[in-house]
Amino acid sequence: VNELAGLDTPFATVDLDAVERNIDAMQRYCDEHDLALRAHIKTHKLPEIAAMQLAAGATGLCCQKLGEAEMLFEHGVRADLLITFPLIGTRKAARFAELAAEGQVSVGADSEEVARELSAALAARGATAGFVVDCDTGFGRTGVQTPEEAARLAGLVDALPGLRFSGLMTHPTLPESGPWLRAARDLIAARGLTVERISGGGTPDALRSHEHGVLTELRVGNYVCGDRRTAAAGWMPVDDCALRVRSTVVSTPTSSRAILDAGSKTLSSDRGPEGSVDTCGLIVEYPDAVIHELSEEHGHVDVSACERPPKLGETVTIVPNHACATVNMHDEVALHRGGREVRIVPVAGRGLVR
Amino acid sequence: VNELAGLDTPFATVDLDAVERNIDAMQRYCDEHDLALRAHIKTHKLPEIAAMQLAAGATGLCCQKLGEAEMLFEHGVRADLLITFPLIGTRKAARFAELAAEGQVSVGADSEEVARELSAALAARGATAGFVVDCDTGFGRTGVQTPEEAARLAGLVDALPGLRFSGLMTHPTLPESGPWLRAARDLIAARGLTVERISGGGTPDALRSHEHGVLTELRVGNYVCGDRRTAAAGWMPVDDCALRVRSTVVSTPTSSRAILDAGSKTLSSDRGPEGSVDTCGLIVEYPDAVIHELSEEHGHVDVSACERPPKLGETVTIVPNHACATVNMHDEVALHRGGREVRIVPVAGRGLVR
Repeated sequence: VNELAGLDTPFATVDLDAVERNIDAMQRYCDEHDLALRAHIKTHKLPEIAAMQLAAGATGLCCQKLGEAEMLFEHGVRADLLITFPLIGTRKAARFAELAAEGQVSVGADSEEVARELSAALAARGATAGFVVDCDTGFGRTGVQTPEEAARLAGLVDALPGLRFSGLMTHPTLPESGPWLRAARDLIAARGLTVERISGGGTPDALRSHEHGVLTELRVGNYVCGDRRTAAAGWMPVDDCALRVRSTVVSTPTSSRAILDAGSKTLSSDRGPEGSVDTCGLIVEYPDAVIHELSEEHGHVDVSACERPPKLGETVTIVPNHACATVNMHDEVALHRGGREVRIVPVAGRGLVR
Repeated sequence: VNELAGLDTPFATVDLDAVERNIDAMQRYCDEHDLALRAHIKTHKLPEIAAMQLAAGATGLCCQKLGEAEMLFEHGVRADLLITFPLIGTRKAARFAELAAEGQVSVGADSEEVARELSAALAARGATAGFVVDCDTGFGRTGVQTPEEAARLAGLVDALPGLRFSGLMTHPTLPESGPWLRAARDLIAARGLTVERISGGGTPDALRSHEHGVLTELRVGNYVCGDRRTAAAGWMPVDDCALRVRSTVVSTPTSSRAILDAGSKTLSSDRGPEGSVDTCGLIVEYPDAVIHELSEEHGHVDVSACERPPKLGETVTIVPNHACATVNMHDEVALHRGGREVRIVPVAGRGLVR
């Protein structure tokens, strides 16, 4: 197809012009503040966009699961890869060692068990990989709990064969992250170890990363696509939200109700964090319409506030709530540039949960 | 692999012994009450289980999207298929006509526009298909709004080439559905048309379908797998929940916190309807543990109520909140029988949103 109108619905689309604007803006910010940009591919799961991020100046990429990293290597995307997920078990350790034998990879983890298991697999394979100590600076997910624990794990990692202590990471970067990471850095330096990298993450507060005064690297994913959440937070205008879903009005049972062919299996069930976005997506052409609920394949739209509601059979464009979740629902997306140069590509990283 | 323990995590598994118990119980109910059982494949999206449902006595299958029906045909599952979704647009009409030329299919829809478009495509292809009038008997999604509208649409459909008026459908079957459907049936009969089929749907109230006294068919999907919602509603014991997700504890940052390698991209973000299930899944081995939140790839578990919490590296078994949403996240599932005879199959219907 040459035009988006040639696509059947529902279809997820990604505007590469908007993607480029988003990539450039974030790269400019990082360059200005002397931060390395490590782009998280979990948002788009597309080797094409990963390559664009690298070409624009990203110093590396970030994967949430091992399978995503393998997918990048298989697609010829060679870059410094950080897997920000604790890899547990001998099977994953062996797969990680294979990647390490082929390219430059590191892992973010928080336990001696993971370090020892990966070290054994790397040593057996004769490979070397980086180990970034994952620090819980306040979010309450993974990560060592104190700067002292971070220093202890850094020391242990440094002594293990196959592993190189590569620095610290946290997610998201919170106001309290700065002092925490500085304390850890100083304790580790006192042990005679170099902290190459101090990596903070998360799109919402990305543009304040320099204010912490301690980060050397920014990990971000969502900035590249944008979504209803980022737009609602004032983070980017709707025009720059590159990911959209084209959907058709399949039923108009009453004058106030329109039903779309995009439900939770197309858009995902994600709503906004802390009630910031309490509906299920924004209809670009009908900002007064409210997608108030999703069935698996139906979007339930209240059109009572629309002066001229969408008609049966009409195609509309949805900005989904959460780009990372929406892309992952689709086997393929249509890349385009302002509606032209449409190219359908597989979502190569979709479903790679292991 | 011969055993589930041989699978890496996270991995979705389906116990065919439990599936058979669930299929048999629902078939018995339908046989007892002289209801045709039309099994909805949106829950499992697996031709293997569709074939089991037919072998046990289902008189037909139900698909939510056209692509699911095409998938069944491609996999050699031949059955009376009902697509319970309004098919809009000439592309979908042509695809539907292809199916109609190959086998016995019908569509559920609520508008003259859909009827005319499908009729034109069917006539052009020289094929015939059924048309079931979708009735909104109170749920407020798709469907004609009154018994009079139902009768009008039935009359119109009956006069169109290629289409055969095949009856009425509603979802879900509510207390008020019975009188509504009876009124529509009588109005249609008064026009001299036969109402072959009156089809109600939804697992939660499935076992009360006979009480309405008007249904001839039951459409159900979720009953075959079961999930945290159906178990919480007292609908089936957890033992009969056939779909599970095996997951590993990848981090234990504090004594009260465990992090799993299964997040919303593995389990889906679906919670319970109306707050009935306010957590993100049940850990079978640790019923006192609470999966209180999901990141995309992390399950956040509060283990403070566990006498003996799960250990780092331990594999646990999750009953997800919503089976239909969870299966759809996965490219493959492991079929097994009580943990043995493990067979990995692709989720053939996954992602078929068009």
